[in-house]
Amino acid sequence: MYGQAQPLRVALAQMDPTVGDIDGNSASIREQIARARQSGAHLAVFPELAINGYPPEDLLLKTHFLSAGMQALSEIAADVWDIVVLVGFAEPAEDVYNSLAVLTEGEIRGVYRKMSLPNYGVFDEQRYFQAGGGPAVVRVNGVTVGLSVCEDVWEPGPPASEEALAGAELLVNISASPYHHGKGMERERMLVQRARDYLSYIVYCNVVGGQDELVFDGHSLVVDQDGELVARGAQFEEELIVCDIDPSTVYAARLRDARHRPSVRRRRPEVVMLAELDAVGRAEPLEVGGPRAKPMEPDEEMYAALVLGVRDYVDKNGFDRVLIGLSGGIDSALTALVAVDALGADRVVCAVMPSPYSSEETQKDARRIASNLGVEQFELPLDRPMNAYKRTLAEVFEGTEPGIAEENIQARIRGNLLMALSNKFGWLVLTTGNKSEYSVGYTTLYGDMAGGFAVLKDVFKTWVYRLARYRNERAGGDLLPASVLERAPSAELKQDQRDDDTLPPYDLLDSILEAYVEEDQGREQLVRRGFPERVVEEVIRMVDRAEYKRRQAPPGIRISQRAFGRDRRLPITNRFSG
Amino acid sequence: MYGQAQPLRVALAQMDPTVGDIDGNSASIREQIARARQSGAHLAVFPELAINGYPPEDLLLKTHFLSAGMQALSEIAADVWDIVVLVGFAEPAEDVYNSLAVLTEGEIRGVYRKMSLPNYGVFDEQRYFQAGGGPAVVRVNGVTVGLSVCEDVWEPGPPASEEALAGAELLVNISASPYHHGKGMERERMLVQRARDYLSYIVYCNVVGGQDELVFDGHSLVVDQDGELVARGAQFEEELIVCDIDPSTVYAARLRDARHRPSVRRRRPEVVMLAELDAVGRAEPLEVGGPRAKPMEPDEEMYAALVLGVRDYVDKNGFDRVLIGLSGGIDSALTALVAVDALGADRVVCAVMPSPYSSEETQKDARRIASNLGVEQFELPLDRPMNAYKRTLAEVFEGTEPGIAEENIQARIRGNLLMALSNKFGWLVLTTGNKSEYSVGYTTLYGDMAGGFAVLKDVFKTWVYRLARYRNERAGGDLLPASVLERAPSAELKQDQRDDDTLPPYDLLDSILEAYVEEDQGREQLVRRGFPERVVEEVIRMVDRAEYKRRQAPPGIRISQRAFGRDRRLPITNRFSG
Repeated sequence: MYGQAQPLRVALAQMDPTVGDIDGNSASIREQIARARQSGAHLAVFPELAINGYPPEDLLLKTHFLSAGMQALSEIAADVWDIVVLVGFAEPAEDVYNSLAVLTEGEIRGVYRKMSLPNYGVFDEQRYFQAGGGPAVVRVNGVTVGLSVCEDVWEPGPPASEEALAGAELLVNISASPYHHGKGMERERMLVQRARDYLSYIVYCNVVGGQDELVFDGHSLVVDQDGELVARGAQFEEELIVCDIDPSTVYAARLRDARHRPSVRRRRPEVVMLAELDAVGRAEPLEVGGPRAKPMEPDEEMYAALVLGVRDYVDKNGFDRVLIGLSGGIDSALTALVAVDALGADRVVCAVMPSPYSSEETQKDARRIASNLGVEQFELPLDRPMNAYKRTLAEVFEGTEPGIAEENIQARIRGNLLMALSNKFGWLVLTTGNKSEYSVGYTTLYGDMAGGFAVLKDVFKTWVYRLARYRNERAGGDLLPASVLERAPSAELKQDQRDDDTLPPYDLLDSILEAYVEEDQGREQLVRRGFPERVVEEVIRMVDRAEYKRRQAPPGIRISQRAFGRDRRLPITNRFSG
Repeated sequence: MYGQAQPLRVALAQMDPTVGDIDGNSASIREQIARARQSGAHLAVFPELAINGYPPEDLLLKTHFLSAGMQALSEIAADVWDIVVLVGFAEPAEDVYNSLAVLTEGEIRGVYRKMSLPNYGVFDEQRYFQAGGGPAVVRVNGVTVGLSVCEDVWEPGPPASEEALAGAELLVNISASPYHHGKGMERERMLVQRARDYLSYIVYCNVVGGQDELVFDGHSLVVDQDGELVARGAQFEEELIVCDIDPSTVYAARLRDARHRPSVRRRRPEVVMLAELDAVGRAEPLEVGGPRAKPMEPDEEMYAALVLGVRDYVDKNGFDRVLIGLSGGIDSALTALVAVDALGADRVVCAVMPSPYSSEETQKDARRIASNLGVEQFELPLDRPMNAYKRTLAEVFEGTEPGIAEENIQARIRGNLLMALSNKFGWLVLTTGNKSEYSVGYTTLYGDMAGGFAVLKDVFKTWVYRLARYRNERAGGDLLPASVLERAPSAELKQDQRDDDTLPPYDLLDSILEAYVEEDQGREQLVRRGFPERVVEEVIRMVDRAEYKRRQAPPGIRISQRAFGRDRRLPITNRFSG
């Protein structure tokens, strides 16, 4: 009977799967199903590829990886009773699909296959998956639930438009949508628009957690047919979000709106009804509505992304402690701060490695930062190895002027010392370079670039300052000494060196880089935007020439719309410039 | 009039474009057009994306890169008279296409758009291109010429099947088909099959040259409607291949074959006729038929791929000389040999860097190899820096046993010394690790992995021996001392170390790696194939754990069907094993 369906309780499991950990992910899914049942939910929703982890990349080319996932899914299904579970998995059939399974009554009762496969930016889904054939719904206690997976809902149109037309009061989208700065609210605005367009509830369940260069921000959502917020999950944290959905508000809204009135629908949508299911659950409304996490401010958000990115990379790869070379400069200071916030002070070790070009002030600051953070610190002076290299190379270098070669030897001694500690004690080295440096190649390959994870790789220098100030303020004082924030940046690889001897001021540099690296603007466009031509030329030249260095850089956390790595694939051998 | 067309002279420009070098590539194209006209050709054929270079990767996301290519194409067209030119370019329209332009009479007379966009292995074409709408032909002096681009012809079916059905006597495929071992003959067998299936001539024009990790092998082909070879271009060399095609043999064959007889064609194919063109050219047949390069033997072929890969990487990136650390072992010896064959002895410099663990024999061999090759050599002993690190780390390492950390310090000192020479003199460091080592992580990050280009990265150790023997035999003697080929492999990072202390014998290791890395066989499949279970387990564990090292490896030449790099994209954070 149209308009007679009862309220539905929905639980969104905003979880943090690990790629390839089918057993671990399955155990989490079972645990969350149990919690969802306890909360009285009729429907429990899990993210895209929750069984396999996202993105599994070329694991998807291994047939035994696919069958292990299928096996796990069937075993989970066998234990699902009284509740309907929607969960993402990689489906091996006559081809491979990125699918959503409907589980209940001990079985897989239906499967929806993702229709829209992203193949841009960091995504390579057309490398792995075949596109699904069409929209599908499932009926749960009389409520029609439309199904879709991630990208499916980013463009208006099928499957969601068709599913709504076929009567879905609730559109579920399971997702693994990677974070970039501001992405959560961007996504929320899009989903509000879809809910209004289709006059449907939208239940959007996202992954949370770090996976190599990607961070997933959670921020799962339920909005009603007017685009009003029903529930919002936390950012960067696992959470089981439970809320009630009242389909009667959908019927009322559709009856008011001529475009959606059932009696005047212009065409019959082609939508598959997968199953009609009954769930037990509780009908009485929750005492409070769903949880509504407050969205973070920009600085807080980016900082939280870095913290989660570090924590998950370190923990998922089984490292006990991390090691950071502290120079007394702001990049290594912020890296250490993030690490301590991610892991706790007892899991962070710092090394101070003074050379004859290190100033007393920076060395003092380095030690002070380590004490403020309460981390273990080592002191390893560079003079002995520097002398040894000098003597070893004396004959070959005879008659040459000291320059980049000598500067880089120092940086590489530091890299070698950090890696020696890493090899000896099993610590992961965190590198400290920022995106401005990686862009223009103001870094030493195998020197300050030596390490397993580059925390600030996608953070421009101007943002490094902003995040340091934010974190200092949050601490209510001088967690980082003021001198660290105020001193002119220097690599300290020769006497009285300053970054701005070689580079434009960071304000200007970062603006050009943002336009050139992240927006693909060319030389002429940049000059037209008012950047000085000489500087533009120089920056472009530096960025293009440094491609070979970035190819050997450690992975780092993506927080922008265009990070180095999978996101920006440029040839090294390349004569096009600008 | 059916069957009345005159013979057509075709010139295939098997050229070596540079990615992004639109001016340089255009100049080469103009030069080859002039040569083709001089040879009396009616039709000149150039490879896929000849204007832009292949693969341009994310340069294709820059609108000014696309428009620069279009501009160059128009300028070339303006100077094309009396001859018809088919050339590949990236076409910006309402979307971006991988297209083939038909140039003559000073204009772009038509465009065919690639229909089949590969998105597997090293290919990401669906990231950049929209698929073309359908088959197309052009008529040149009465001969109907079917058009296709690379992947289009690898599967039977459209466009080529339709174009043949529409009367094409000649199917042109312009290509940028990367080499792997044996690919040339594999491709030739496929093209012979297509020619027979469609009863058409096939003119296949491929790129030659190195582009980062890829090598293109040339081996362009013309086969007739019976699959008989008309012309074969050289492997790994630029060449203008000129040959005559007599369409009357096609008519005769089709009249004999009921399936192809024009009067009984079952359906009208949907094929666009782009233009009817006249070319001047010469009608009298060539004194000799087209050139028919003899295909290389397997060892010769792989070796030639490495030589071209090195030469093009070094030259296209503007390096004058390369630097190699010679250990006296076979990997660095073969690397030096390849470099000398690619660049000449005067462009190769070797450094011998003995440590206390280097045996006298290996050091003697290292020096002997350098003299045999006639290259400049330096000697840089490691004892001073080793002592310096030892003293610097003494306190921190107190109470620990010497192990991997100490071994890696040595390897990283060598890395630092080579990079110091590189920075000082502008030489490119070639690294010497082989695929067996990269697979299991038997390499030191920032140590022996330090450098710009990894020559043997995709060559298993067993093949390193095979190639060394091949090259030694070709030289007619002991270019590499017999001791280098006979000594048990050792990293010489501690006393009496041998590779087989840690690794299975290379014969066994390489067989397992080939199945695991290149064929995605799982643990169970490997054991079922008869490999010892304990060894399989250990090899899989080592390969999976080493992913983080490979992510920071320099690019190297792809010679297999699955190289590390773009070809095999596995997560670092990954709990799936086997």
